[in-house]
Amino acid sequence: MSRKSILAFNKSLVRLLPSSSHPIPIWTVLLSGPSTFRVHESHSHRKCYSQNHSSKFNYSSEHENASGESWNKSGIFGAFTGLTLAAYVAWRKSEQNGVHAATVRMESEEIKKDLPTYKSSEVAVHYNPETKIWVTFKRGVYDVTEFVEKHPGGSRIMMAAGASLEPFWELYPVHQRPDVFQILAKYRIGNLSEEDVLEQQQPAEDHFKNEPKRHPVLKQRSLKPFNGETPPSILAEQFYTPNDVFYVRNHLPVPQVDVKSYCLEIEGISIKSSSLRLDDVKKFPKVTIAATIQCGGNRRSDMSKAKPSAGLAWSGGAIGNAKWTGASLKDILKKAGFDPKKYPHPEKVHVQFEGLDSDQSGECYGASIPLTYFLDENFEPVLAYEMNDKSIPIDHGFPLRVILPGIVGARSVKWLSRIIISNQESQSLWQQRDYKVFSPSVTMESVDFNSAPAIMDTPVTSYICSHEDGQVVAQGNIKMQGYAFSGGGRGIVRVEISKNRGNTWEVATIKHKAPSAARNWAWVMWEAEVAVNKQDKEIWVKAVDTGYNQQPEDFKNVWNYRGLVSTAYHKITLNVK
Amino acid sequence: MSRKSILAFNKSLVRLLPSSSHPIPIWTVLLSGPSTFRVHESHSHRKCYSQNHSSKFNYSSEHENASGESWNKSGIFGAFTGLTLAAYVAWRKSEQNGVHAATVRMESEEIKKDLPTYKSSEVAVHYNPETKIWVTFKRGVYDVTEFVEKHPGGSRIMMAAGASLEPFWELYPVHQRPDVFQILAKYRIGNLSEEDVLEQQQPAEDHFKNEPKRHPVLKQRSLKPFNGETPPSILAEQFYTPNDVFYVRNHLPVPQVDVKSYCLEIEGISIKSSSLRLDDVKKFPKVTIAATIQCGGNRRSDMSKAKPSAGLAWSGGAIGNAKWTGASLKDILKKAGFDPKKYPHPEKVHVQFEGLDSDQSGECYGASIPLTYFLDENFEPVLAYEMNDKSIPIDHGFPLRVILPGIVGARSVKWLSRIIISNQESQSLWQQRDYKVFSPSVTMESVDFNSAPAIMDTPVTSYICSHEDGQVVAQGNIKMQGYAFSGGGRGIVRVEISKNRGNTWEVATIKHKAPSAARNWAWVMWEAEVAVNKQDKEIWVKAVDTGYNQQPEDFKNVWNYRGLVSTAYHKITLNVK
Repeated sequence: MSRKSILAFNKSLVRLLPSSSHPIPIWTVLLSGPSTFRVHESHSHRKCYSQNHSSKFNYSSEHENASGESWNKSGIFGAFTGLTLAAYVAWRKSEQNGVHAATVRMESEEIKKDLPTYKSSEVAVHYNPETKIWVTFKRGVYDVTEFVEKHPGGSRIMMAAGASLEPFWELYPVHQRPDVFQILAKYRIGNLSEEDVLEQQQPAEDHFKNEPKRHPVLKQRSLKPFNGETPPSILAEQFYTPNDVFYVRNHLPVPQVDVKSYCLEIEGISIKSSSLRLDDVKKFPKVTIAATIQCGGNRRSDMSKAKPSAGLAWSGGAIGNAKWTGASLKDILKKAGFDPKKYPHPEKVHVQFEGLDSDQSGECYGASIPLTYFLDENFEPVLAYEMNDKSIPIDHGFPLRVILPGIVGARSVKWLSRIIISNQESQSLWQQRDYKVFSPSVTMESVDFNSAPAIMDTPVTSYICSHEDGQVVAQGNIKMQGYAFSGGGRGIVRVEISKNRGNTWEVATIKHKAPSAARNWAWVMWEAEVAVNKQDKEIWVKAVDTGYNQQPEDFKNVWNYRGLVSTAYHKITLNVK
Repeated sequence: MSRKSILAFNKSLVRLLPSSSHPIPIWTVLLSGPSTFRVHESHSHRKCYSQNHSSKFNYSSEHENASGESWNKSGIFGAFTGLTLAAYVAWRKSEQNGVHAATVRMESEEIKKDLPTYKSSEVAVHYNPETKIWVTFKRGVYDVTEFVEKHPGGSRIMMAAGASLEPFWELYPVHQRPDVFQILAKYRIGNLSEEDVLEQQQPAEDHFKNEPKRHPVLKQRSLKPFNGETPPSILAEQFYTPNDVFYVRNHLPVPQVDVKSYCLEIEGISIKSSSLRLDDVKKFPKVTIAATIQCGGNRRSDMSKAKPSAGLAWSGGAIGNAKWTGASLKDILKKAGFDPKKYPHPEKVHVQFEGLDSDQSGECYGASIPLTYFLDENFEPVLAYEMNDKSIPIDHGFPLRVILPGIVGARSVKWLSRIIISNQESQSLWQQRDYKVFSPSVTMESVDFNSAPAIMDTPVTSYICSHEDGQVVAQGNIKMQGYAFSGGGRGIVRVEISKNRGNTWEVATIKHKAPSAARNWAWVMWEAEVAVNKQDKEIWVKAVDTGYNQQPEDFKNVWNYRGLVSTAYHKITLNVK
């Protein structure tokens, strides 16, 4: 279906819709909407069968088509990590430029007397590039046609086309920052009629109201979706991070899964489609691996100190190590007839994973890894239903999370619903745009998302957990503790400490590591007795992995606007009394 | 056999030997000598069956036992990389201390009137720790018992025990540096009788006299053994480095191999021993890989600018890329019954390789890699008999070199004679002591060789080939070219250039890389148009690999006394006119 024919189809559908002040932006639905409208049935990420599963966010396509209400009232659960970041960057820029949030926000509250006034129904017909793309916010009407291409969240911005941004931005409050308002203000073309402004002010449904309870020790980095990290001081205490304090990185609302109806679907190239209930998965031989899972943005706040980067301001606690128990993913796939050696070009085949967590369009969280991983007998992916010998918690993917050891956490999809052997990568935002690392000179504006690969194995990192930046300590010997980790199954050769900006280095003691194995999927815990006196200010830590990879010394030359793989030496300043 | 019983056995053997002014130091033979005396017959590196092959350096054990002459006249072909380095470090130290070579050398030329005079026969009985270990050099007699433990070349120094160092040091002229003399002087205990001094002055046999002819463009880094690198300007010209200008890294004299009698032996744990002639190898399906081979010391001279490091002063040309054609090593091993999945603890099993190049004790060049590599279908080791579509040249391992892609060049053993599946690593010096990377604070004196693993996959590096440090260029656009490479099959995501010390980075164009495959065994060639003006002085290049590994920014914090994995940003200063 060409773009032109989609538009024609789109227009004809609009004519069939009930006249409403907020018709469904059908253009949007065609771009990213529910499966009813999907035209591609290839083995791509875009099929997301969340309707097969019991999920709180299981809107049927009928519901959406019948009234369109849900679109407008409930907002977008899309992957607005990108937009979040854009907002953050913009906000930082505005701070630098001395722009005050309040001043800018005011713009949207005001009636601009020199601009025309539109009703919602007039805005609603501007939902695609041909008719122009209009949105409303507070009292403003905006033509964002030109902005759509630049939107880091991709075409999903189209879900608000012809309607109000407010319900979407309420779910992602980070949008409500001065420079996002400032960007928006550039596109203002009119005022929204007062009666429609009043209607917009109805409170939106809270799709996060049934989230699980979290341990209060988790340092919250965002509430909706929930993201919280383990305080580093706790991390250093145990080799296995306890479940309830293990960092949580959610991209969407947590789905509520009914185990009775839960099914894992397996399908794709050269395998037979199958569907497994949790009990079926549990019939496979039980395997356990010790593996560290780390968010691609772990330590972003360190990188942002060099220069602001966009994303959740993780400290060094968006990482954790656990025993993951379940079925071997290889066993599960083999049962479905999967043989990685059968593919003539394994480098062009990808194993995709989809989660039950989805946005309102039905588009779910997704990720993929190259099939070549499966050609390595040393690679030990697990479909985990237990975490540290307990049933895997809801926040960590109950009932099933795929654990892809050595690979950035974003690929270890939680609430796993589907595995697809495909001739392309996951087309999800998190694979195609987010979780990629660009050159320090690349900005959100100049980025070419195709110029970098999705992060897979993560580089070596290390962290001081026992002491915080600026901490007061007494002169004498102090015991420092922390972690070091490298992706790709590489072990840690050594951890080194310097208290004189690298003039000399002391080798720390590796206190705890996983038993010797073909690959090292788990971090190591290190400790060092460091004699500090009043001259010693900065303490540096760095690690070397078994590939003799080194951490960058600082962030200047490895900075990237998304603040990813933030792995430079960890440096803290102590206040020695 | 305990140390005590070895000594007893040793003494009894000495009594059986013909009375000579230079008896064989049997203690040495037991430590590292020919197989006749070997007590360990396990699957270790120490068995070196070079007598099965036609090699110029094929001394039979009988020959050695009968007269012992060869020991003394021909010197040591051992792996004195370590000692070489020690000498270098010492020399640099002495330079810093303002010690003049001539002054120190004089010591050994002089008769010390306050010390006693010994005949060679008196020195000769001091060949083991119980009788003390004496050596002679010029007019000096030295008790080096205390030094033996510190010798970077390990127990091989014992080959000179009870005899003269001169023939050994003539083969490795780098020993003849001021601080080596200075170290030696500390151990002086006497004078050698004048008649023995005269006898020592007989010229030693040149075991390197039949080396192949080398292309004059190779920049020689040592003559005996031959080591020469490709001028970087030539490297950037072609994706495949021509054979005759491909860097040569030899550790020992080049063996002369008679193909008619050449055999590759295969043996070890859970496989059947077999012996293959070259024609047998050629009967296996022919495979070709494009793979970059890099010396562990490539770019050492860059690291040494930060602080002197020990070893051959390679610039950035100890690297090359070629098409390697031959039999798949996996096919060859499979035929011998090898199945990597059969080993219950694959991480404890190693695949050892031995070369036909050996020192006079019969100890050959050796290396090993963990068996876990063979569990990865993506790993493509080749037994290469062709290099760039021609018969593999003598300097590169004729008739057979094992090519272990993605792994440091030192493991791709030339003149391959034996493959052993073993429960331990190669015990060779190059595996156990050399080609390991230690903390910047570790010195040759403090090193614990067991504290670091043997280098396997090499980290990401990049190099400017088109321009040299200090080169004069005209203001305006200059075209820069170079290579970037990462080990472990990791590809290059991008190469970046900065002309302002990292304030901004420009992304270079990848001009040539191998076709898409599961792994990237070959380097990439990059180029960049860089606009330089008179303010621009330093040009930096760095690369990022597909594991998002970064190069260190400079050498200070990654320096190691051996100058290995010297992979910091390549920085050159241009003289812009």
